[in-house]
Amino acid sequence: MDLPETPEETLDPQDWDAMRELGHRMVDDMLSWLETAREREVWQPVPAEVKAHFRQPVPREPAPPEQVYADFRQNILPYPMGNIHPRFWGWVMGNGTALGMLAEMLAAGMNPNMGGGEHVGIYVERQVIDWTKELLGFPTGASGLLVSGGSMANLVGLAVARNTHAGFDVRKVGLQGCTGRLTVYTSVEAHSSIQKAVELLGLGSESLRLIPVDDAYRIDVATLEATLAADRSAGLQPICLIGHAGTVNSGAIDPLETLADIADREGLWFHVDGAIGALAVLAPDLQGKFAGMSRADSIALDFHKWLYVQFEAGCVLVREEAAHRGTFSLTPEYLAHQERGVAGGSRWPNEYGVQLTRNFRALKIWMSLREHGVEKYGRLISQNAAQARYLAGLVSASPDLELVAPVDLNIVCFRFNPGKGSEGLPRLDDAALNALNEEILLRLHECGIAAPTYTTLRGRYALRAAITNHRSRREDFDLLVREVARIGHEIVKEG
Amino acid sequence: MDLPETPEETLDPQDWDAMRELGHRMVDDMLSWLETAREREVWQPVPAEVKAHFRQPVPREPAPPEQVYADFRQNILPYPMGNIHPRFWGWVMGNGTALGMLAEMLAAGMNPNMGGGEHVGIYVERQVIDWTKELLGFPTGASGLLVSGGSMANLVGLAVARNTHAGFDVRKVGLQGCTGRLTVYTSVEAHSSIQKAVELLGLGSESLRLIPVDDAYRIDVATLEATLAADRSAGLQPICLIGHAGTVNSGAIDPLETLADIADREGLWFHVDGAIGALAVLAPDLQGKFAGMSRADSIALDFHKWLYVQFEAGCVLVREEAAHRGTFSLTPEYLAHQERGVAGGSRWPNEYGVQLTRNFRALKIWMSLREHGVEKYGRLISQNAAQARYLAGLVSASPDLELVAPVDLNIVCFRFNPGKGSEGLPRLDDAALNALNEEILLRLHECGIAAPTYTTLRGRYALRAAITNHRSRREDFDLLVREVARIGHEIVKEG
Repeated sequence: MDLPETPEETLDPQDWDAMRELGHRMVDDMLSWLETAREREVWQPVPAEVKAHFRQPVPREPAPPEQVYADFRQNILPYPMGNIHPRFWGWVMGNGTALGMLAEMLAAGMNPNMGGGEHVGIYVERQVIDWTKELLGFPTGASGLLVSGGSMANLVGLAVARNTHAGFDVRKVGLQGCTGRLTVYTSVEAHSSIQKAVELLGLGSESLRLIPVDDAYRIDVATLEATLAADRSAGLQPICLIGHAGTVNSGAIDPLETLADIADREGLWFHVDGAIGALAVLAPDLQGKFAGMSRADSIALDFHKWLYVQFEAGCVLVREEAAHRGTFSLTPEYLAHQERGVAGGSRWPNEYGVQLTRNFRALKIWMSLREHGVEKYGRLISQNAAQARYLAGLVSASPDLELVAPVDLNIVCFRFNPGKGSEGLPRLDDAALNALNEEILLRLHECGIAAPTYTTLRGRYALRAAITNHRSRREDFDLLVREVARIGHEIVKEG
Repeated sequence: MDLPETPEETLDPQDWDAMRELGHRMVDDMLSWLETAREREVWQPVPAEVKAHFRQPVPREPAPPEQVYADFRQNILPYPMGNIHPRFWGWVMGNGTALGMLAEMLAAGMNPNMGGGEHVGIYVERQVIDWTKELLGFPTGASGLLVSGGSMANLVGLAVARNTHAGFDVRKVGLQGCTGRLTVYTSVEAHSSIQKAVELLGLGSESLRLIPVDDAYRIDVATLEATLAADRSAGLQPICLIGHAGTVNSGAIDPLETLADIADREGLWFHVDGAIGALAVLAPDLQGKFAGMSRADSIALDFHKWLYVQFEAGCVLVREEAAHRGTFSLTPEYLAHQERGVAGGSRWPNEYGVQLTRNFRALKIWMSLREHGVEKYGRLISQNAAQARYLAGLVSASPDLELVAPVDLNIVCFRFNPGKGSEGLPRLDDAALNALNEEILLRLHECGIAAPTYTTLRGRYALRAAITNHRSRREDFDLLVREVARIGHEIVKEG
């Protein structure tokens, strides 16, 4: 009974009204900041003094919330990544939305633990998963889980593939002493998260068979089939085939119907990495590209990419609920479900993935889909794909720019190549063009003009614009093309 | 050039001022909801009509944000998990705070992708990691990562253990064909996430050697040493020893100094699962219990438990940065770091864990530590531990309640046992007591009185109060004890 008789302390505000007032200011500031994004640089470097500001000893004493917020306004808000901006097309990122931002506040206020239990958040997440199954043509009996993103969704899918197709009890005995070699097949264009998952699962990157691609960066089916046959002859045990609904480099879509047929015939788990493009099925004009996708045994997708939802909002669907649950479910006493009370309910989300504690990421997705409806998302995805074609058209029409990969979806890989290497200006070799385009990209960033990133395709360094941006307009691509050419010539002139 | 000449669509609000107004209402509503939490039931069941509300077809058409929010107010907010309430002590969960809630809004507004790149969020997260190292006595050269929670932090720690101690290149060749058997050691009280990680890593649950515990639920060191010796004789290859800074069932702290010695001597990776209790080092009166913890090779902890931060806010520290990075780093072209621009910077967070895309969870932790300072957190943690002892005292002093495990930290396991089975009332056997206490727990939940959860220790069903709650007061524990006895007698009377 060693509690002091003084009142207990709490982290609750001493002055709730002051906190309300601060909250209002934050809402106003952040919404204005989003509203005026177009007027600012896309990106600017973090000054040395700001970096130094974040190398301090741990605070011992309290500070008023207003002061903490002032610090945020001064030292954090001015130096964002930039993906909220209309001219950010780096990697593959969504912008987020105004209501999505507010939804995160609501979710954090309620702060449920979505690992399990009986409370409304569980039903909201189930609704989002059901909607996703409906949109992607998955059966109603399929299971699903909201996860951090594509990396985790791919890991979950491959874990189920491993555990169901090894032919022995992997959970119990592990891969140690496995006499065969379980192998996984995908194209060389696969995202690094596939290799990461294969390594983490103990399969070894040697077991990941990377198949070459055709000119459109789609998996070469003939080579895939030959490799499968050769591997079987060599005593390997193929377990999983991974197709892409949009590759990270160029947005290429593998021939999913054909891959589904092969997986069927060969008895392989068919996983689709749809992080980049799966949601494009919402766009009527793009839907046809994804034939066969709904035949996947598991699929990874990201609401924080082409649904423009705030990070983190990934999702995995698994056709066979039992296989999914059988890979992850562990119910020790302290996680056992009751019939009644807060520990009630069945099929707790933690039984379908790696996380036990999970936040209420379902809310922002649910509110976003309610706010805009899927038809508008379909139009916006179409619009981004049309913008990609528009940009590709500008590039092709420019005397000094060229495409480095075909545009299948929303990713445009191009480079500055003065005179397209053919006339007037001295012809530059690939090494010189690579260096030149790298410098162009850095200046685009440093001047705050635009933020594509880059990739290298068959040795050619390419500026890469991945358009999952609901704020971009045609004029932004006009500007991009104009500035790339201007900066390119400027660098050439500098010699 | 198939873009229509009509203006592009966007997900930005049609009326920013209306969105500001809505945001203000949300702030007011949520802060009032938190302020008045004590006046409401801890938990209430989700009505059937609300469940039905979340079984609708996907929305095709848009809805005004105000209407979406009205739906939230009507169908979501009234049915929380309850962990924001002063009398929620279920599983091990924090409440979150008011500023933490607003910080999530700020983070979602900026919406950076914390997988990498050069922007201020990277420096904020590094600051939080540096503070954590400082608080836990880790060397400045150690690495760390904010993760979803303890499950992921344990997975990361064990992945590094596996890859560094296997004796061969696990990333490349995998565990397939590994002729030995890599084994991992911890106590039977280990959290299920340890088994989940071992299974996911392909080690197999058979390779997880669960050592018995002593009367205080701490690992039995003699048995551990005997098992290690026997396993080595049998040709197994021990790679990792896991100690607990607070077990999930009862908060027991393993003898960490001794375990560190054993790990040193045996050449094992020493991982500490500190999800439950590691942050108690902030409390001067509890610090001494954690001697040896700072010698861990890796440690898992959760800011969303005993720092009361909003979900998700886990953390893993790894003593050897190179070992950590060497387990996860993959830098394909599209993730390569540049010297300048938005793809600048070194040591990108995605190279230290499973996720590539990551949200700005660092902000709420940084703002919380700035707002309150670590000394206040230390006092609150002390207060929770003192409340656990206070509750244990009330239990011991009650004629009808008894402790089921010693209280080492902040977890109290107790049960109703009328007359403590010794006098007056008929003596009940464990089976009857188990059923009786289960019913007590359900009625506590259903009446909205309090929300402990339960566990079973050596066959005895126990109500389990895990106190990581900054809103709890002494009176809440008085009420709990009173109500458990009242409900217990009520059920006994019902026969």
